[in-house]
Amino acid sequence: MSSERLIYLPLGGAGEIGMNAYVYGYGKPGKERLIVVDLGVAFPDMDGSPGVDLIIADITWLKERRDRIEAVFITHAHEDHVGAVAHTYADLKAPIYARKFTGNIARRKLDEYNIPDSALTIVGAWPEQVEAGPFKVGFLPISHSIPESSALVIDSPEGRVVHSGDFKIDVTPGVGEAYDPELWADVCKDGVKALVCDSTNVFSPKAGRSEATVGPAIEELVSGAAGMVVATTFASNVARVKTLAVAGDKAGRSIVLLGRAMNRMVEAALETGVMKDFPKTVSAEEARGIPRENLMLLVTGSQGERRAASAQLARGKYQGIEMKQGDLFLFSSKTIPGNEKGVIRIMNQFSELGVDVVDDSNGHYHVSGHANRPDLETLHDVVKPQILIPMHGEHRHLREHVKIAEGKGFTGVLAVNGMMIDLSGNKPKVAEYIESGRTYLDGSVQIGALDGVVRDRIRMALNGHVTVTVIMDDNDEPLGDPWVDCMGLPETGKSGTALVDVMEEDLSQFLGRSKAATLRDDNKLNEGLKRVVRQSGQEEIGKKPEVTVVVSRLS
Amino acid sequence: MSSERLIYLPLGGAGEIGMNAYVYGYGKPGKERLIVVDLGVAFPDMDGSPGVDLIIADITWLKERRDRIEAVFITHAHEDHVGAVAHTYADLKAPIYARKFTGNIARRKLDEYNIPDSALTIVGAWPEQVEAGPFKVGFLPISHSIPESSALVIDSPEGRVVHSGDFKIDVTPGVGEAYDPELWADVCKDGVKALVCDSTNVFSPKAGRSEATVGPAIEELVSGAAGMVVATTFASNVARVKTLAVAGDKAGRSIVLLGRAMNRMVEAALETGVMKDFPKTVSAEEARGIPRENLMLLVTGSQGERRAASAQLARGKYQGIEMKQGDLFLFSSKTIPGNEKGVIRIMNQFSELGVDVVDDSNGHYHVSGHANRPDLETLHDVVKPQILIPMHGEHRHLREHVKIAEGKGFTGVLAVNGMMIDLSGNKPKVAEYIESGRTYLDGSVQIGALDGVVRDRIRMALNGHVTVTVIMDDNDEPLGDPWVDCMGLPETGKSGTALVDVMEEDLSQFLGRSKAATLRDDNKLNEGLKRVVRQSGQEEIGKKPEVTVVVSRLS
Repeated sequence: MSSERLIYLPLGGAGEIGMNAYVYGYGKPGKERLIVVDLGVAFPDMDGSPGVDLIIADITWLKERRDRIEAVFITHAHEDHVGAVAHTYADLKAPIYARKFTGNIARRKLDEYNIPDSALTIVGAWPEQVEAGPFKVGFLPISHSIPESSALVIDSPEGRVVHSGDFKIDVTPGVGEAYDPELWADVCKDGVKALVCDSTNVFSPKAGRSEATVGPAIEELVSGAAGMVVATTFASNVARVKTLAVAGDKAGRSIVLLGRAMNRMVEAALETGVMKDFPKTVSAEEARGIPRENLMLLVTGSQGERRAASAQLARGKYQGIEMKQGDLFLFSSKTIPGNEKGVIRIMNQFSELGVDVVDDSNGHYHVSGHANRPDLETLHDVVKPQILIPMHGEHRHLREHVKIAEGKGFTGVLAVNGMMIDLSGNKPKVAEYIESGRTYLDGSVQIGALDGVVRDRIRMALNGHVTVTVIMDDNDEPLGDPWVDCMGLPETGKSGTALVDVMEEDLSQFLGRSKAATLRDDNKLNEGLKRVVRQSGQEEIGKKPEVTVVVSRLS
Repeated sequence: MSSERLIYLPLGGAGEIGMNAYVYGYGKPGKERLIVVDLGVAFPDMDGSPGVDLIIADITWLKERRDRIEAVFITHAHEDHVGAVAHTYADLKAPIYARKFTGNIARRKLDEYNIPDSALTIVGAWPEQVEAGPFKVGFLPISHSIPESSALVIDSPEGRVVHSGDFKIDVTPGVGEAYDPELWADVCKDGVKALVCDSTNVFSPKAGRSEATVGPAIEELVSGAAGMVVATTFASNVARVKTLAVAGDKAGRSIVLLGRAMNRMVEAALETGVMKDFPKTVSAEEARGIPRENLMLLVTGSQGERRAASAQLARGKYQGIEMKQGDLFLFSSKTIPGNEKGVIRIMNQFSELGVDVVDDSNGHYHVSGHANRPDLETLHDVVKPQILIPMHGEHRHLREHVKIAEGKGFTGVLAVNGMMIDLSGNKPKVAEYIESGRTYLDGSVQIGALDGVVRDRIRMALNGHVTVTVIMDDNDEPLGDPWVDCMGLPETGKSGTALVDVMEEDLSQFLGRSKAATLRDDNKLNEGLKRVVRQSGQEEIGKKPEVTVVVSRLS
């Protein structure tokens, strides 16, 4: 096996929705020249990653092969595709390629880390191609919920691979390029080795709707509103932001953009020319002088994020603007699984203010940015790949997508994170299993998901924490009584005596009956004290707390 | 204002879905004789109540008026209506009334707390009535997703109040009593003062479907399955459990009940006679000797609960039974907001096992147990109350329900937990605001939601924890160096030196420059040490940890 091979290796995004990071390589086994497609983030939650700021794919494998990486290509500017581009730069040091709008967003991230201008190269759309070692890579426009989303056409000596990126089939996307079936047919006409394909909406049975279909419903809603209208959507969905702004403008309302991301995305879309004719906006300060029935606010926070503009408006005011009885709040968005409680919280806060909340439960005010099952099949049929590899999906999405592929006569490959696939020859095969996983950006530090740091936090959240302090004199005898401090535990339990008193008494008794061999041995003493505290906890409050034991020896 | 009045006071369930607890009273202000309707629980989550076992309404107000409580009535056996009946008994000591099936479930809870048989009285359906001080209370059957759900007909000298309990309009509910429009019309024909009404599905615009409609689809699915079939639903939805079992039986499969709740509910339904003709079941042990294509398992865990049978099957095996490639798993249920991630987790685990998962996304395999908007209106029109008070809903549900009521000419009252409404005379009014809230059952202890215990746990989960130990000699000078222990924090930060070393060095320097007045003063010293550690944390790892300081003085 010393001949060249073409490999595909997902490090993130295959087995989950989010945190996209894919690797392609070509060359002799173990010496392949590599390109990276997307470096995205995932978002933490209290259940699994409390206190964490961002989740990034573990790129140890890439880091160890840094000298073999030719380039990084970013398909589009969503956080789960571009979000880790700055955090990983120091480890990879590979040139980054993106189109204009995507690059504008990437540049803002790189700037925060003082990464030089030369790190990022802006590339035009297909037929422009970037040479990257044995690969030639072109950005093939396709519609999605952000401008300039692109599939990558990856040419290698083993043939052409099409990496779909995130996409939907939309010939009237409003802002950004339409899906162009002729262009796609042309690119794929000479045969495609493999289509690596978005799987997010594989379980949605009906064809997706165009972005253009939401405009009329939104315009009708806004024009019929009596008070102030506030709408939220993902700021990166620039087409939707424009649709909302136009609806407000047509209804004679002044448009206000609230929230950092909202302002940044509109700015990037205008700077790069991907969006034109955006209605004139006024500042929050100017808005305060305008009657509320003449205002339309476009705000961040469609997922109920606590610090976003929507949540701040729900709690009271934001930049001097308050919502009131008779106002309307529109979620022109869908709630991502896991965010339901946050969204419901602000809906109820608005309800308490007398604000009417409208969401997409009737299907009129939002469309998805991903290809539904029939739309996936549309792309399959245009690309006609020899091999179909689903990506950007949980295991169940990938599995379903493979079933569809095989039902249509393609070779389907279910490849999850860490599974390196050899695409050479006639039959794809698993070449190797790579250790993959997650890294947490935690405050200013990167930690491994399995380092135990977050596990300990979760345990403290579930069980509370007890500090036990014991001072041993120079004869290794306890000096005074052991001391207990509790955090996150009830003050009293079953006995009605203070929990710390019960624990201190139990610890004293333990020390009193312990032999010198135990008292002299730090490990034995620690273990013993810990066990006593956990047992007291169990008896008194029905809980075994996490314990820190500090034994200070004066000897 | 010394004349008698009729009051309504929600303590739980009005402003949330779950944790139902309502109070009615009649008498002179401050001397009303009281009855309690439902004593339910809510369920904790990592976001807001980590480590908590159950959430119960704060019943301090009731406890302080224990001598005025005539009785507790339980409308039905769902946990959010009956779940707290045992935990609150010691505080209320009031006789509990329920129908047979509900009482069977309540009894099992009371037994765990050794509460005497005399505490609970089983009552027949309307026209039977219980005298409770100035009230006469009857259980009026209505359909829901559990047998014997009942509205309460509460007669007082101020007129008749109908408390709907949870309900849907279903004339073919399978197990349990059908909604009987003639009976309801008869009960309400002489005028109803107030309808206190379930609001859960007020945002569902279409009329609900009968339980009877899911049978055929489920039978088709099960009869077409090749491998083992496993289905989950709420165990308390006895009608659904029977529908599933019958589908399996018709397909020639042996039925296995897995999970404690599943066995308990079927047992209770058979014991009380509310369910008849349940197919014969086999034990898990017997099932292991039966070919998988002849098995149908009914399991707990429709919400993805980690310890339930469904989750255990997804992780590997449960009671010796394993799922395999070609088996089918059916969620005959809907996912309650907040549980999405847990459900998705097990769906993906099944996918990895090669098990096909079917859920209700096509609307064929589940119907809701609550009245949708048109069904609510059906009940309004039968009851024709003077006043309509929505309950069992978040604020947004109550508000929408009030709008509907007022649109139909009823007097709508938006009463949230703690709001005491005086229903006497012609116009309902707020009589008083009572302090209401939540109590946590935490291990074996009850704590207040605002005690700070859970807040501290959340902070440790977000920020980690540091223990600082300092020993002061008899001159109030530091003896040796300060000692730091971390939990839930990265080992190293920005400087590359171990975090504990950086903190210990910073603490040493702080002690070195502190004046005797600080060193002698426990509070000042604690505050100073805490501040230094938090600042070191911020600089090194971008996080300010929670800190426990232990200063031991040898003097």
